[in-house]
Amino acid sequence: MASSIPSSSLSPPQVPMELHVANREKLLKSLRQHLAELSCPLHGFVFLQGGEEQTRHDTDHIELFRQESYFAYLFGVGEPGFYGAIDIATGESILFAPRLSADYAVWLGEIKPLSYFKERYLVNRAYYTDEVTGVLHDHFQGSGKPLLFLLHGLNTDSNKYAKPAEFEGADKFEKDLTTLHPILTECRVVKSEMELTLIQFANDISSEAHVQVMRKCRVGMKEYQLESMFLHHTYMYGGCRHCSYTCICATGENSAVLHYGHAAAPNDRTFEDGDMALLDMGAEYHFYGSDITCSFPVNGKFTSDQSVIYNAVLEAHNVVISTMRPGVNWVDMHILAEKVILESLKKGCIVVGNVDDMMAERLGAVFMPHGLGHFLGLDTHDPGGYLKGLERRKEPGLSALRTVRELQEGMVITVEPGCYFIDALLLPAMESSSTSRFFNHEVIGRFKGFGGVRIESDVHVTASGCKNMTKCPREMQEIEAVMAGAPWPLEKASLYLENGRERV
Amino acid sequence: MASSIPSSSLSPPQVPMELHVANREKLLKSLRQHLAELSCPLHGFVFLQGGEEQTRHDTDHIELFRQESYFAYLFGVGEPGFYGAIDIATGESILFAPRLSADYAVWLGEIKPLSYFKERYLVNRAYYTDEVTGVLHDHFQGSGKPLLFLLHGLNTDSNKYAKPAEFEGADKFEKDLTTLHPILTECRVVKSEMELTLIQFANDISSEAHVQVMRKCRVGMKEYQLESMFLHHTYMYGGCRHCSYTCICATGENSAVLHYGHAAAPNDRTFEDGDMALLDMGAEYHFYGSDITCSFPVNGKFTSDQSVIYNAVLEAHNVVISTMRPGVNWVDMHILAEKVILESLKKGCIVVGNVDDMMAERLGAVFMPHGLGHFLGLDTHDPGGYLKGLERRKEPGLSALRTVRELQEGMVITVEPGCYFIDALLLPAMESSSTSRFFNHEVIGRFKGFGGVRIESDVHVTASGCKNMTKCPREMQEIEAVMAGAPWPLEKASLYLENGRERV
Repeated sequence: MASSIPSSSLSPPQVPMELHVANREKLLKSLRQHLAELSCPLHGFVFLQGGEEQTRHDTDHIELFRQESYFAYLFGVGEPGFYGAIDIATGESILFAPRLSADYAVWLGEIKPLSYFKERYLVNRAYYTDEVTGVLHDHFQGSGKPLLFLLHGLNTDSNKYAKPAEFEGADKFEKDLTTLHPILTECRVVKSEMELTLIQFANDISSEAHVQVMRKCRVGMKEYQLESMFLHHTYMYGGCRHCSYTCICATGENSAVLHYGHAAAPNDRTFEDGDMALLDMGAEYHFYGSDITCSFPVNGKFTSDQSVIYNAVLEAHNVVISTMRPGVNWVDMHILAEKVILESLKKGCIVVGNVDDMMAERLGAVFMPHGLGHFLGLDTHDPGGYLKGLERRKEPGLSALRTVRELQEGMVITVEPGCYFIDALLLPAMESSSTSRFFNHEVIGRFKGFGGVRIESDVHVTASGCKNMTKCPREMQEIEAVMAGAPWPLEKASLYLENGRERV
Repeated sequence: MASSIPSSSLSPPQVPMELHVANREKLLKSLRQHLAELSCPLHGFVFLQGGEEQTRHDTDHIELFRQESYFAYLFGVGEPGFYGAIDIATGESILFAPRLSADYAVWLGEIKPLSYFKERYLVNRAYYTDEVTGVLHDHFQGSGKPLLFLLHGLNTDSNKYAKPAEFEGADKFEKDLTTLHPILTECRVVKSEMELTLIQFANDISSEAHVQVMRKCRVGMKEYQLESMFLHHTYMYGGCRHCSYTCICATGENSAVLHYGHAAAPNDRTFEDGDMALLDMGAEYHFYGSDITCSFPVNGKFTSDQSVIYNAVLEAHNVVISTMRPGVNWVDMHILAEKVILESLKKGCIVVGNVDDMMAERLGAVFMPHGLGHFLGLDTHDPGGYLKGLERRKEPGLSALRTVRELQEGMVITVEPGCYFIDALLLPAMESSSTSRFFNHEVIGRFKGFGGVRIESDVHVTASGCKNMTKCPREMQEIEAVMAGAPWPLEKASLYLENGRERV
């Protein structure tokens, strides 16, 4: 049956460079407004440095280049070694391309003329990087040294700072290091229609790949084989050369390791009958990403214990999505998810007592130590979660939130509740005088080595609610049907569509 | 027919950590001998720093970590953040593992005890990285500050220097920055049996993947789809998470771009009937790599022009391999390949005149501007090509050689002759007074946009000759048969095997 299903119904869409023109216009509008409010002159340049190719240590092994995200946002340039400027006075955009040696044509390809970059990236002017100082001085309309607005600010996920552009002749300019970062970051938080289209495609191809992986998953495989199938599907049919992040393909107890899959835990376990799989994998397309987690039993049939945990998480996922709309605070959504999960665990006799008491003791963070979700866009953990002086919460679980903001139309945020049995958290909590009473110690013993369940969708906040951009089987029956070879979406839903009714 | 062929006959072999024990012993022996010859005391430590995880710019996006190659050679450690030492007096090996925070267990996985690393990596002792100074002082058997032999030296492919280990307390040691690099590099040049086994596996799975790609190649595909198939095959069936280098999947005129496939030329052309494909792709397994190029017509049938160029290159490839043995100089092999190619081009009426005259004018470098091959091992361009004060040649083509050494038993070197029609080289040569007379200007016009052909195998120099570790279809008939669906190796060869005779 499965063999009659075509591999993919998708193909990579055209990328409109107008998207980046619009991004620049949006920044320019925000920045001019900000300067006007402060009665500052509308002079100077936004000036960014694109990423450089990196070699591995002292060797000539070049890592596949992926553009720095702020630069990608404004200019859409895929190649390394560029600079870009936006003239605040005129709104003109200028790209500076590296001047390539004649050797380049032999080893690396055609040396493109400046006009190529001007046309391809829809900028007003194109020069070489060794012309930055002269060009910006020539175009500056104010008096004195030209003012450059450089990118410098904290990434609240990494605690690292964006590096301002470095170039020869930097001393010939005035520099502003504080204005640009918060304004540009805030531009990135609210997505345009064109950005949403790319995130939707990344979601579509990644959702389809997750379904393929579910279908082909067999007891006895290695975790990395699921990763390989995912990568292949998204690249082969979606043209996605990069993933948003290293694939997490965790089975059995590994599924309780939140960021499994890295070099020290390289998706190399052989999975067994009865294991749950937790697959957190998302492709990116033209810089814009997806971030999707599916959890399912590797043998295609949920056990009773698996269904308790799975449905606890699924209900949290669904309740949150049905509650999301502009104005809703993300901390409240996290707390809502925790509560729904604890209530389900109580129904499943895994915890006992009053759920409000559990919440007061932050029991939810024992089962879900990570935040409910994060902004998604050019970065998997897209910036802007703590702009405008917002403070991180101190409580377990809430302290891990990557944003505490109110939802706003145009945001894209992941909804990724999870429920894990992590010894490092569970054992102390089961012995703690404040939380021990909540555990059904006998029943919870059955979940030793269970791992965990996470369900993660990418959700676009609309004017009146939200839209789930991820299209994976989520209900247990859907997962079991797809793993048994049913087409996706399920036939019944397809029939509804054919009868002219919208699928729910 | 093709569907009856199983996807792979291979599976990832066990990795013997004894390989790295032997690497350390080999270094120790060389280093002690060197010190003894200089009447230096046999005290001190070889001390190396392993690689660190890198994030993308200011974000928390972590690039998939791959160990620094010298460190991998000596210790085989896959995880980031380690240091390693070898006590020259006792021969004892010591690993220093990063001390992980309690949080690690929640986010990144089990915190392994030091005994785990000691057993897994077969070292004598294991400590934490914050114990380096104390431990090395305790173990030092000489007087005064302990002496550290640190890694510092030029990589002649990148022109970058290896970075000596950096750590807190470095001022409490004497340092030697000159002794270790040439000796350790020379150890890497000659491969052990265990190293050869891994390089052979990387070759086996990559050869098989190349065959799969040939079989599935269809007119109208995108170049990156061939890359995706290769990556999938080597990961899915070979457990190869890393490639030796970014795949070069060049079709049509792109095949004249020697290092096509990078971010500015990202394997994104749709290929057409009549195109040649040049696919340079190799997987690595437990750090040891492969580097293989196949060239073939995307529609599965060579044209007459394609066969002229293909066979010119194949003959060079075969003649070089049949000539290689210890004592042969690599420059001579390069010149031999050039000559064979020019003779074939003369037979094909593409060039005219006396081949020796062409050689004197370095015409070979117009058609093959790169070197004939390079050492292969932990790095694609494995170091050691210019040790012992060897000088780079100045002449076109020869100046691109990554080594000018005499072959030695145990070396693994790529044999990768090519013939390309590169406008940036061909047009000036056709107009130059010294070389214009060699071109059949009428015939060569047909090859405008042809691209190029490269055939690359990984060759192990044995005591009496050499062994080709690469197992791809090379003869035109073999390629056409495999692309038409024949099994590989071809049936006829298989029949010989069944009759008890060895395949040639």
